[in-house]
Amino acid sequence: MPEKLTIIKVGGKIVEEPETLQTLLHDFAKIEGHKVLVHGGGRSATQLSSQLGIESQMVNGRRITDAETLKVVTMVYGGLVNKNIVAGLQALEINALGLTGADLNYMRSEKRPVKDVDYGFVGDVKEVQSNILANLIEMGVVPVLAPLTHDKKGNMLNTNADTIAGEAAKALAKHFEVTLIFCFEKKGVLADAENDESVISEITRESFAKYVANGVIQGGMIPKLDNAFEAIDAGVKEVIITQADRIFSGGGTHVI
Amino acid sequence: MPEKLTIIKVGGKIVEEPETLQTLLHDFAKIEGHKVLVHGGGRSATQLSSQLGIESQMVNGRRITDAETLKVVTMVYGGLVNKNIVAGLQALEINALGLTGADLNYMRSEKRPVKDVDYGFVGDVKEVQSNILANLIEMGVVPVLAPLTHDKKGNMLNTNADTIAGEAAKALAKHFEVTLIFCFEKKGVLADAENDESVISEITRESFAKYVANGVIQGGMIPKLDNAFEAIDAGVKEVIITQADRIFSGGGTHVI
Repeated sequence: MPEKLTIIKVGGKIVEEPETLQTLLHDFAKIEGHKVLVHGGGRSATQLSSQLGIESQMVNGRRITDAETLKVVTMVYGGLVNKNIVAGLQALEINALGLTGADLNYMRSEKRPVKDVDYGFVGDVKEVQSNILANLIEMGVVPVLAPLTHDKKGNMLNTNADTIAGEAAKALAKHFEVTLIFCFEKKGVLADAENDESVISEITRESFAKYVANGVIQGGMIPKLDNAFEAIDAGVKEVIITQADRIFSGGGTHVI
Repeated sequence: MPEKLTIIKVGGKIVEEPETLQTLLHDFAKIEGHKVLVHGGGRSATQLSSQLGIESQMVNGRRITDAETLKVVTMVYGGLVNKNIVAGLQALEINALGLTGADLNYMRSEKRPVKDVDYGFVGDVKEVQSNILANLIEMGVVPVLAPLTHDKKGNMLNTNADTIAGEAAKALAKHFEVTLIFCFEKKGVLADAENDESVISEITRESFAKYVANGVIQGGMIPKLDNAFEAIDAGVKEVIITQADRIFSGGGTHVI
């Protein structure tokens, strides 16, 4: 029987404001067994860009990463946000290790080809070295993954944190019984966008297709759920979409 | 017989300009056996601070680290400079891993007490977990150490790169036969500051005391040599002070 591993992806304000970050880290520290934290940091990146006079361009919720923006996200995701989380977890006796895809070459990507949109220095994941991550986890290390990869040719690349979490979960499913939890600002996937209590408790591929067809699920929720089903197909035991402060409640949307 | 380990500290322009960085990484990649790279990044930190309208205050060559400056150095040292080096080494088939003191809690410090000068969020090193570093090194990992530590209470702290290199060397001397190389802009410690060729090839504690007494060695060179002798006293086999492009030449100043 493989051991259990919980992978939690948190983004947005939660990791970027000291108070909510502390609550999250305390909750995360209480999770039993092996665990991995994946973080975003987009708000801080947008803020630093603006302070530096760099315009943040978004297309379909994805950041266009020019050379200057790549420097900003490398600083903010790989430095500021990642190290504050690592230091915060170490204070709680969690042996955290901050990683980008370049560190230990654990996640290699390729610069996204230009089609309709030139996303710039954005990496599509091509290879995850799960052995080295699994070894560290078995040694009691808690990886803290920043949303950055590299191309193995010397360049860092910006990669969406949901993608990092999904790819890490799929690769680690060979070694552990993986639960992947995506935290976001709502209690789960909602049946009615106007009603925060209308959480869909369980979604299958079949019901997902119906929800998309009738417009109940739309926008940024679609790639999130696509990611979730891909993870399930690759052997991840369970994917949960919920609010960061509810990771212990058993609520949220379970993707099966 | 313990295995050999080479620890190289590089700072300044070398790691911050793409061309000199590439030359350095190629030279570093050629070093045989176990190795560790320690980097600075002060120029980039000063530049980013200035772009953000934060004044860089230096006292005796040390940066005063207020809360805003701590964010800057965490971004620049832990993010930008560290990850560019790690990605650059991975492209050369070196299995680099970027670390701050918080990562794996490998180097704990305490905020420097305020005496004549309030250095702000600057950490004096208190504890190095050499076992975890030694394990990684024995697994073939090449640690890339940023000049940042943490206080194990959730705070990152700014720590001079020479100090990081010295403390890592002393702790790793329990596990390896360590050569510590400090790279800087001169060919070595000079007997005549006006003559770049006047390298003192060997310095002992006795000759050091004389050089300081007669004013041949002064300023920033004194703490650098103090660091070097401390390392020797703690079991480091050899400390070399030289230019980054001469790490293979056998030149420079040997501290014995």
